[in-house]
Amino acid sequence: MPSTTNQDPASGKRQIVIIAGGVGAARFIDGMQQIHPPDSISVICNVGDDLTWNGLKVCPDIDTVIYTLAGIEGELGWGIQDDFTSMLDELTVLGDEAWFRIGNRDLATHLIRNRILQNGGTLSEATGELCRRRNVSVNVRPVTDDNHPTMIRTTEGILTFQEYFVARQSEPVITNIEFPNKDSALPAPGILDLISTAESIYIAPSNPFVSIEPILQIPGIRDALIESKAPKIAISPIIGGKAIKGPAAKMLYEMGHDVSALGVAKIYAPFIDLFVYDTIDQELTPSMDSLAIQTAHCDTIMKDRLGRKQVAVNVTALLNEVQKY
Amino acid sequence: MPSTTNQDPASGKRQIVIIAGGVGAARFIDGMQQIHPPDSISVICNVGDDLTWNGLKVCPDIDTVIYTLAGIEGELGWGIQDDFTSMLDELTVLGDEAWFRIGNRDLATHLIRNRILQNGGTLSEATGELCRRRNVSVNVRPVTDDNHPTMIRTTEGILTFQEYFVARQSEPVITNIEFPNKDSALPAPGILDLISTAESIYIAPSNPFVSIEPILQIPGIRDALIESKAPKIAISPIIGGKAIKGPAAKMLYEMGHDVSALGVAKIYAPFIDLFVYDTIDQELTPSMDSLAIQTAHCDTIMKDRLGRKQVAVNVTALLNEVQKY
Repeated sequence: MPSTTNQDPASGKRQIVIIAGGVGAARFIDGMQQIHPPDSISVICNVGDDLTWNGLKVCPDIDTVIYTLAGIEGELGWGIQDDFTSMLDELTVLGDEAWFRIGNRDLATHLIRNRILQNGGTLSEATGELCRRRNVSVNVRPVTDDNHPTMIRTTEGILTFQEYFVARQSEPVITNIEFPNKDSALPAPGILDLISTAESIYIAPSNPFVSIEPILQIPGIRDALIESKAPKIAISPIIGGKAIKGPAAKMLYEMGHDVSALGVAKIYAPFIDLFVYDTIDQELTPSMDSLAIQTAHCDTIMKDRLGRKQVAVNVTALLNEVQKY
Repeated sequence: MPSTTNQDPASGKRQIVIIAGGVGAARFIDGMQQIHPPDSISVICNVGDDLTWNGLKVCPDIDTVIYTLAGIEGELGWGIQDDFTSMLDELTVLGDEAWFRIGNRDLATHLIRNRILQNGGTLSEATGELCRRRNVSVNVRPVTDDNHPTMIRTTEGILTFQEYFVARQSEPVITNIEFPNKDSALPAPGILDLISTAESIYIAPSNPFVSIEPILQIPGIRDALIESKAPKIAISPIIGGKAIKGPAAKMLYEMGHDVSALGVAKIYAPFIDLFVYDTIDQELTPSMDSLAIQTAHCDTIMKDRLGRKQVAVNVTALLNEVQKY
């Protein structure tokens, strides 16, 4: 079967590599797949938010990316649109707490993933299978096939990411973010190659602490990023001092950073070439000049599918300009 | 905690024991719980129909009994009433065959059972927990905590029970019914005691081959039944030469038995005291006389909850009459 010799979409063709968390990343990637061939895009996805829910492995960031690329994401960015929760309501009737919201249709994803994992498949294989079944041609990958949870140490004790984010609505004050498996988790097959052979590398507009950092913590990933010859560009998740979604701004404050695009730029400066922030934050331009990297601004708000495409166009144009230097 | 010393509802109190399959049994037990204290009834349930569905253990007979006793059974006798299948429909969208129908609300049961089993609990414990959560006071038990599948050998090959019953709609011609784990499966804790200390033992109006026989195949069960001093009564699942539900009549034919209540009576005669058949079949009464057991007839059709209660009243009255001898 000659077709199996080149199964990896990344092999033989340099990829646009996007380092991604959940909702913001998913919208940006959807923009990118509207202006680049989808199979020329590879996504390295965070798994630090993953949880075991009633014995089923659930991967919120991977699922959000796949659902968004398939055009079926829920109104709030996660889950499946027009989904209902009768299964979850029944669990509640039966006395479960059921604080983690999983819709009826969403559950089908977790059942299929679970079946593949139970049969000895890897998370990479399960993710590839889910992409194929959703007709998603972008190459979505978990950064690791191993368990690699993000643990949130707070003034109220240590929490898993979902306990912090969903059950506690990001309210507890963070004192540290920890990755207990960071030394033992291995990059998933092909991930380091994707980075080192990339045509370009984008850090999606995701939370730097709990979406991007967990990826960089996997042994070898950060070094591969630094060593890759590809131009590296990050898009700010902070616009006008606020995160479009999630606790990124609150985390910047609690972790002692500037609560601004500049604060994010400083975090990424050691390993990127270009930092893109929203035009609304252009008053930050002078202070950006102190960084040892290129910075630029454009409109980065993605209100709808057309907006996502426009942001991808804007950011790609800025990258092309940087490459002239 | 003194309350834990007497957790077994059967301990210290002789139980009405009902040997049960699915829909027919569930309706009869619901009748019985309307005229006897529910916690004086113990049900020994078939597990030969159990299947692993997307990695989750599903126990159709146990669930049918619990749902019926909780008053939430579906219109066709199985599943939960007013349930929808959006989860299953999504699996189909994703390319699964999904021939085994599991509703959204129904799935909550399987998730809770799966979680208990994954945490090292037994099927008996999971069943007890599901009864408590459904406020079912009848003591519903699996006959065994082990895997004990019923395999249907047909002229078209060997099938699991659900492949035969659901996927193939009971169409293939049966050549044999096999229980590959019959020598290794153990009675669940307390089951043999329940039988030997029972106040009375009922064989529910269930399929003799694939509901009752799998229970009798577990080592020790048949002997315990024969040795128990309790009066033993079986209710015919065949009425007017037909089964109310399921392939019992077709199986009687294919397995070489009379397709009638008499055919069923002959199967049970070696270990029961009284066989009850429907009044519609009273023309069989003379031929019943050749059996070495008592036989009697009454109305056994259970159209609604009141009908279930009436059948329980009828059958209990016949048992009381037999006990006078």
